[in-house]
Amino acid sequence: MSVDANFPGIAKQDMDTPALLVDLDLMEANITRMDRFLAGKGMRVRPHYKTHKTPAIALKQLDAGAIGISCAKVEEAETLVSAGVKDILIANEIVGRKKIARLAGLARHASLMVAVDDPRNVEELSQGMSEAGAWLRVLVDINVGMNRCGVEPEDALALAQQVANAPGLMFVGVMGYEGHCQTIKGMEERQEATRQAMSRLLQARELVQAGGLDVEIVSGGGTGTHAIDADIHGITEIQAGSYVVMDRDYRDAGMDYANALTVLATVISRPTPGRVIADVGLKGMTTDHGLPELIGVLGGSLTRLSEEHAIIDLSDPTVELKPGDRVEFVPGHCCTTMNLHDRVYGMRGERLEVVWSIAGRGKFR
Amino acid sequence: MSVDANFPGIAKQDMDTPALLVDLDLMEANITRMDRFLAGKGMRVRPHYKTHKTPAIALKQLDAGAIGISCAKVEEAETLVSAGVKDILIANEIVGRKKIARLAGLARHASLMVAVDDPRNVEELSQGMSEAGAWLRVLVDINVGMNRCGVEPEDALALAQQVANAPGLMFVGVMGYEGHCQTIKGMEERQEATRQAMSRLLQARELVQAGGLDVEIVSGGGTGTHAIDADIHGITEIQAGSYVVMDRDYRDAGMDYANALTVLATVISRPTPGRVIADVGLKGMTTDHGLPELIGVLGGSLTRLSEEHAIIDLSDPTVELKPGDRVEFVPGHCCTTMNLHDRVYGMRGERLEVVWSIAGRGKFR
Repeated sequence: MSVDANFPGIAKQDMDTPALLVDLDLMEANITRMDRFLAGKGMRVRPHYKTHKTPAIALKQLDAGAIGISCAKVEEAETLVSAGVKDILIANEIVGRKKIARLAGLARHASLMVAVDDPRNVEELSQGMSEAGAWLRVLVDINVGMNRCGVEPEDALALAQQVANAPGLMFVGVMGYEGHCQTIKGMEERQEATRQAMSRLLQARELVQAGGLDVEIVSGGGTGTHAIDADIHGITEIQAGSYVVMDRDYRDAGMDYANALTVLATVISRPTPGRVIADVGLKGMTTDHGLPELIGVLGGSLTRLSEEHAIIDLSDPTVELKPGDRVEFVPGHCCTTMNLHDRVYGMRGERLEVVWSIAGRGKFR
Repeated sequence: MSVDANFPGIAKQDMDTPALLVDLDLMEANITRMDRFLAGKGMRVRPHYKTHKTPAIALKQLDAGAIGISCAKVEEAETLVSAGVKDILIANEIVGRKKIARLAGLARHASLMVAVDDPRNVEELSQGMSEAGAWLRVLVDINVGMNRCGVEPEDALALAQQVANAPGLMFVGVMGYEGHCQTIKGMEERQEATRQAMSRLLQARELVQAGGLDVEIVSGGGTGTHAIDADIHGITEIQAGSYVVMDRDYRDAGMDYANALTVLATVISRPTPGRVIADVGLKGMTTDHGLPELIGVLGGSLTRLSEEHAIIDLSDPTVELKPGDRVEFVPGHCCTTMNLHDRVYGMRGERLEVVWSIAGRGKFR
């Protein structure tokens, strides 16, 4: 019953709303720019799927030179394998017999890597792969200061040796995500914090190498730190995600990649000259990294979101904006906002060029 | 490729995670309790679909005596009509030719009401219904102090008369949602604010009646104010939503309906004795009404969520909790959390009894 009224060729002003738009020119430029920047530093990007969860965008990133794709969950990897992606890092711990059985099934169709930080998990991964006759590449996850998952650098070697000796597993390197550094406001402070964090990752690499194991991959970094990481000798690939479409939060943090992602909405009410209500709320745009930003309306600002409404204040009450008119927002956080939508509309200028399924949306297992 | 590993009969401890659970005993008691409470006051509930977006739950609410269902969007109404619901209030303004054409199509299959607050919108609704040979019941939306949509009480009569005279439309009453009162902490302050808000709705009713029009329906209220609204003579139905499954925010606001909704997750890492990481984050639980609450772990508390991780602090580091163990959270905000999930699992005690599709998820047009 639910038919999409938006089809290729339609003009933006005629689209049904709320609608998640990506400006293809801007997105393509972001993709090329990241790839060229890192290539110039002898490094590769392994873009994080969490941002867009859209196989078509992952394929564009690979076409542009990405070494593979990063993701966080087995179900996300399934959507990537279905789309033909062959080299996937699940940059997360995968725990439990059922998930590991699914992982083993997938490992027959693509080269998979996962992260580990616990000897019991290494055991069950090894057992699951052995039972299925599959094999898995493994990175030891290092806590670089974010205090989420990951072992301390001095514990990396023991875990790496366990992996190296476990049937069905192949030790290939270390990873560490400096999530706590990504949006530090001052660029000097961010550099200092990032270098400190990544020195822990490099320390782990050295301890593992000193123990006699090859460390092929040293993976870390994100959009906010990639330019700092790129100058750190020893890191081999960067897991940046948000750079591809960007958001208000990363722009405020000084990243000059282009804001390619917007949410198109329709004005449904203007009860007073100074207040306008649009038809998108918390179910179409998230606030976990702060409010989205209204663009293109002089003196207009988004003041709050309820579940299905955006409440906009107009400092100039003579601005023309009436029910039926369109307004557009830059999301506060691209990753969680894209996860609310089933489709993203690829715009070439003011026209809809392509409709993509966000096949990874809701795939959190 | 994405098969659901959770099926009726499975035990909670064996379920794949993250999984959104509803305790059926608690939910059924919430439904019965609201219905009986309002019936005792000569009032009816028209439960708001926004909370669960699950047709199977709406049908249970109707079975228990609800007068119909409230929702906010045409696409939500489509999922309700598909499930056989016959009396639906879209408690929101529906703007634009395309949406109104969809609304007219739906109006052939169910008795639909919508809200209006703008003369131009009344015109386009009338035109759309006339062209389709359909008709629509209409409530005039009153701003009762929330400052979102809605006209001032003194402007209600003119709009009601326009509706009454418009082909394809039938004026049936007024509505006003006192969203700003729902979670005011002190019960006396909440009572005072709610009575003040609803006096504006009743003022609108009187002005419209004095103008010679019948006001059959006076609709408003929510979970946090329903017991106050129930004592206000003149209100005919209550649009409460969250009472059915509840959340941490409404519980903290003093509502003693039962928390029937939880998110089940799996521990994936315990990197230090005092820190545990579970496999659900912002993509499985929202934070727009504050953090979810970890339950059942002595001295354990959720400190933050990243996109796919819950970071839990343990004040007692001797608590047994290891990778593979299950943990459970009460969502901070039930409505936006259910909107992240494709399915909700109906539990009878520790067993999965029924799997329901959250068919309204992502239906925000």
